[in-house]
Amino acid sequence: MQTYLECIPCFVKQTMSVMELVELNDEIREKTLRAVLKYLSTIDFHHSPPAMARQIHKLIREQSGISDPYLTEKQRDQQLAMQLLPQLEQQVLMADNKLRAAVLVAIAGNSIDHGVYHGMTVEQILTSVEQALEVPLLGDLDNFAASIAKAESILYLGDNAGEIVLDKILLNQLPLDKTTFAVRGGPIINDATYAEAQQAGITELVTVIDNGDISPGTILNNCDPAFVALFNKADMIIAKGQGNYETLSDNKANIFFLLKTKCPVIAADIGCSMGSALLYHPSA
Amino acid sequence: MQTYLECIPCFVKQTMSVMELVELNDEIREKTLRAVLKYLSTIDFHHSPPAMARQIHKLIREQSGISDPYLTEKQRDQQLAMQLLPQLEQQVLMADNKLRAAVLVAIAGNSIDHGVYHGMTVEQILTSVEQALEVPLLGDLDNFAASIAKAESILYLGDNAGEIVLDKILLNQLPLDKTTFAVRGGPIINDATYAEAQQAGITELVTVIDNGDISPGTILNNCDPAFVALFNKADMIIAKGQGNYETLSDNKANIFFLLKTKCPVIAADIGCSMGSALLYHPSA
Repeated sequence: MQTYLECIPCFVKQTMSVMELVELNDEIREKTLRAVLKYLSTIDFHHSPPAMARQIHKLIREQSGISDPYLTEKQRDQQLAMQLLPQLEQQVLMADNKLRAAVLVAIAGNSIDHGVYHGMTVEQILTSVEQALEVPLLGDLDNFAASIAKAESILYLGDNAGEIVLDKILLNQLPLDKTTFAVRGGPIINDATYAEAQQAGITELVTVIDNGDISPGTILNNCDPAFVALFNKADMIIAKGQGNYETLSDNKANIFFLLKTKCPVIAADIGCSMGSALLYHPSA
Repeated sequence: MQTYLECIPCFVKQTMSVMELVELNDEIREKTLRAVLKYLSTIDFHHSPPAMARQIHKLIREQSGISDPYLTEKQRDQQLAMQLLPQLEQQVLMADNKLRAAVLVAIAGNSIDHGVYHGMTVEQILTSVEQALEVPLLGDLDNFAASIAKAESILYLGDNAGEIVLDKILLNQLPLDKTTFAVRGGPIINDATYAEAQQAGITELVTVIDNGDISPGTILNNCDPAFVALFNKADMIIAKGQGNYETLSDNKANIFFLLKTKCPVIAADIGCSMGSALLYHPSA
């Protein structure tokens, strides 16, 4: 998916939001913002929003000297999700359609997104996750189930810290020996890295690989060859969140996108309403 | 008042908002936004936000070829305010303290601000104005009344289209023969120009002068010498709205600022809460 003009105000807000999270003196704040504005004035709109965010956050890291501004938020969200996990596992176990329930929980976890919701509170996360099983699921669950049954190899592209803890419920509905879980190659916004996957216990469930790139999405051109090889040979890809959609929506692989639509530009691109819980399979 | 880093996202949003009001092809929209971003990356934060807005809207006019994107909105707001006028005049006539009521109506008119509230609807304007006389007035009304009584010359700096219609009620509480009403030198956002003052019937009440500059505020360095002379010899200045506050807050003249605080940066600069109806006299 390309970047739209409407993404620009969001990039500026995101920059301001990162700078609020960390202690920076006024001079560095100003220098960082100027660098981002200058970059934005020259961007190529043909690239995806995460490709832009990749460069913006690189600039922020370089100017501020801070490699992981969302560290505290990520830890808070991981703890919170781990506290919520037992009850949600119970609810999914008791559901008539376990796969459907697990998908809804995985999508509810996608509400934990500091790139879209700046200054996200514990209450906001709790509300979203509590409503998880109540919302309608847009998408063809039977097709998803059939694809799982058929697949010899599944690549699950994780998204945010906290969110990945709830992904464990859906992972447990998949053939674990055939499934690999992928994380980002380094800290970007509140996206999960290997450290969070390990903390969440995902490394105990399935093989975890990092994609070798620091983008809030999956930009194959920038990823490690090992990851790209895995991507290319997977029979089925489960891609969590908007960033993975934005970077892979034009890819012809057998991808199921699981996300909550949190941005009007993406909702319009997909053709659904804002706030939808979406199991989207473009090639279907 | 200087520009703060927090003003930058607003400038970007304002640019997007102007471009939504007018029909522009994608190429011009992109070119305009790039030009604004490039300018923002180099601005001098010592200047006031309206000084920045002056340059930004100049860029927008140059790139888009559209000199008055808010024309339709201004006409709608003028008509709406003229419809509201008789009832508000009645309410002020019946009020125990007519000056206080007139000040509150003038401040309520300041809600009509497309620079802050993008895509402002008729309902939003009606709600603000209807609540006008109910809200508390922050400021020293006695001092304001005493200054009016003493003044040999009063300069009333208008702000937005629509709003200036409601200013007539306060103008009628002033010595009309000693009062001059000033408007902007040309169309900028939804600020009132001479044409709107004439349409509102203000030219029939008092002398109206345009300040010769196209800024959403009063930047004396850019104004016509005739206006500056009038400003310098006025015993009392009544300055409506945030833009006039931002550009004149450091001026030592006898200025009473009448505004609704619509922006957290300005509320913090003044030291009051957001949404306050404010009669502010810094030299007091």
